[in-house]
Amino acid sequence: MVKIDPDRLLTDLKRLRNFGATGPGVVRLALSPVDLESRRWLAGRMAEAGLDAVIDGVGTVFGRSRKSGPALVIGSHTDTQPTGGWLDGAMGVIYGLEIARALAENDTTSHLAVDVASWIDEEGTFSGLLGSRSFVGEPVEESIRRAANREGQHLQDVLEAAGLAGLPRARFEQGRHVAYLEPHIEQGGRLEAAGKSIGVVTTIVGLRELRLRFTGQRNHAGTTPMSIRRDAGAALVAFIPQMNDAFAQLADADTVWTVGRIDLDPGSLSVVPGGADMYLQFRDANTARLQAMEETLVALVRDFNAQGPLNVELTTVDEPMEPVTMDAALAAHLASAADAVAPGQWLRVPSGAAHDAQVIARCMPACMMFVPSIGGMSHDFIEDTAEEHIVLGCQVAATAAAAILQEQWARQS
Amino acid sequence: MVKIDPDRLLTDLKRLRNFGATGPGVVRLALSPVDLESRRWLAGRMAEAGLDAVIDGVGTVFGRSRKSGPALVIGSHTDTQPTGGWLDGAMGVIYGLEIARALAENDTTSHLAVDVASWIDEEGTFSGLLGSRSFVGEPVEESIRRAANREGQHLQDVLEAAGLAGLPRARFEQGRHVAYLEPHIEQGGRLEAAGKSIGVVTTIVGLRELRLRFTGQRNHAGTTPMSIRRDAGAALVAFIPQMNDAFAQLADADTVWTVGRIDLDPGSLSVVPGGADMYLQFRDANTARLQAMEETLVALVRDFNAQGPLNVELTTVDEPMEPVTMDAALAAHLASAADAVAPGQWLRVPSGAAHDAQVIARCMPACMMFVPSIGGMSHDFIEDTAEEHIVLGCQVAATAAAAILQEQWARQS
Repeated sequence: MVKIDPDRLLTDLKRLRNFGATGPGVVRLALSPVDLESRRWLAGRMAEAGLDAVIDGVGTVFGRSRKSGPALVIGSHTDTQPTGGWLDGAMGVIYGLEIARALAENDTTSHLAVDVASWIDEEGTFSGLLGSRSFVGEPVEESIRRAANREGQHLQDVLEAAGLAGLPRARFEQGRHVAYLEPHIEQGGRLEAAGKSIGVVTTIVGLRELRLRFTGQRNHAGTTPMSIRRDAGAALVAFIPQMNDAFAQLADADTVWTVGRIDLDPGSLSVVPGGADMYLQFRDANTARLQAMEETLVALVRDFNAQGPLNVELTTVDEPMEPVTMDAALAAHLASAADAVAPGQWLRVPSGAAHDAQVIARCMPACMMFVPSIGGMSHDFIEDTAEEHIVLGCQVAATAAAAILQEQWARQS
Repeated sequence: MVKIDPDRLLTDLKRLRNFGATGPGVVRLALSPVDLESRRWLAGRMAEAGLDAVIDGVGTVFGRSRKSGPALVIGSHTDTQPTGGWLDGAMGVIYGLEIARALAENDTTSHLAVDVASWIDEEGTFSGLLGSRSFVGEPVEESIRRAANREGQHLQDVLEAAGLAGLPRARFEQGRHVAYLEPHIEQGGRLEAAGKSIGVVTTIVGLRELRLRFTGQRNHAGTTPMSIRRDAGAALVAFIPQMNDAFAQLADADTVWTVGRIDLDPGSLSVVPGGADMYLQFRDANTARLQAMEETLVALVRDFNAQGPLNVELTTVDEPMEPVTMDAALAAHLASAADAVAPGQWLRVPSGAAHDAQVIARCMPACMMFVPSIGGMSHDFIEDTAEEHIVLGCQVAATAAAAILQEQWARQS
């Protein structure tokens, strides 16, 4: 069996952590100066591993194996949230680098091609999942022209300043790229709660993002009796339990919904709110359930408006994302590898978070593997994973990678 | 009986409306250029009416009668809300001007002294009720040094630029100032609902402004199962009905409470809120009830924290304001005048809004009189009052003003 080098893996992970390290966490927003610095370092490490490494026209670092195909692409992202953890994305990329090295060093696997990717801007500093969307051939020119970060910097300007604008972009190679593997931290508490070390991902959940805008009558908070108020905020607060009850009827244990933001208008202590906005996100692995939840919401809105006297309007905040099922054959390889390396220590789990894998799955079979997040925490400086789990996960992924490519060779010969 | 001049009254009211007119409403924030312009105009009109008029060291326009006391002060404010109505405050000031003129023109009342005031910044652009607080001798130097408007302009700088800094400030004159009358629009719908034209104010309600800060655990909205969330926003939303039920037990028909603002932290669709702030105001004419409501809230907070696992913290946003009872003898004069001028058309009502009168009441007997607001609307461009009610209100106020001063003369002779 191919063996990874735990010290080399952990050393590279910790080196990458130094770029943007902030306390225990990392601030390395896509295409920021420190992110660009880390990309140059990463491309250098890929080159040392024998890959042809480039930073492409959107900022993705792509290390292409010099070996002929079939090739397995292993990747994730190295950009972070505004207050990000050190492993979210970064771990999967360094796994790819270590697996490329480990396979190259082992006589039985040295002929196998592993391409390694750090997709740009998974976290959406400018435009979420930009690198993987570019790779699968989605027309991203419009995103590049229009996207800006919170500081108002335009993506186009940032790419130009970095000398990347107009460079070729890494693209899916038909015939060569036969499978995609994305190892990642779980970002939830399921593996930890079950006492398991490895998760084989079944599905990446889909999601809906909606806004409910309640309209009442703005009025003086001192002179307007309770009995005649049309308080949009009070209506919003009263609506939520109805929604919760209705969603609970439809949900299974993995269904989640979140009211992440509430705005009352005008937001003054002495004014009865005339308007109230509530932003809602819900996620599920099952398209039919997502659809049923949305229909339930539409019915609640209809009832609310029929009842009066206030009004509520339901609108879409962002395009719906449909659930993406991971490739069963690739998942079986991950399961076999987990059985061999970590017998009894693995579990099939859905991914509650979005990942580049859901984009890459549009052009080739894709799979994902998780290691546990301590306390289920992520998108926070304190995000962490036990070192033994980091090492174990890389060994499982390397074992699966070798098996996936060996099967492809066997099929082609 | 003294007779006001309806045309002169309405003409001056409409002239004042032109300063900052915006659609049907008015934008005339305290000490803004257009507000200063209107103050110069107002001081001019006062001088034409025979008053010694000044714009004082904080911006209050004070027109002092040349007649010896006893003097009645009639006033309100001419600054507006950011999106204000044309009568809120302005009507009471122009009533004062018209009553001073009407009394001077009538042989039986021409010896009576009426001082007229437009107190600066009732609406709190810089520091709420500043003019009346200065008049009663509250030390406002700290407010002047520290206050700034939403644009970050400092009050001190604005007063200096206007040439007002350091000028004398209008002050309560012991021996001369024997009573205060503030006519005002109702800003609520009680008079209209009862089909009445005049309100004699019993009490200005007190208020409490509090913040409830819920602390939970910020987490990923996709990967954190509903069962293990500590969603601070959900806790806030669940708390409100408990609070509503508890307050409803204590309330009478005039008690009001408002959640005017809610902030979820970080306010992102894809993050389970780790923090949630709710801003609460409640008002009542009864100090004991305000106290009971606050104690109820403290008990709910204690229960919430005892139950866990989330935490909530209750803090004061602004100093409590206690209810202020209007002077009974002055209110009796208003009632007699209403009986004479508008028999059967008047009502005793509380004031749900704060007014300069509650400050002035600290140094002399004070009373207030209301005219109806159409649809109960105020703090909005569409605020309005029927012209017949504006005229009727001024006649009632003039009749009461004469009676109040004549009683004082009779007492002193």
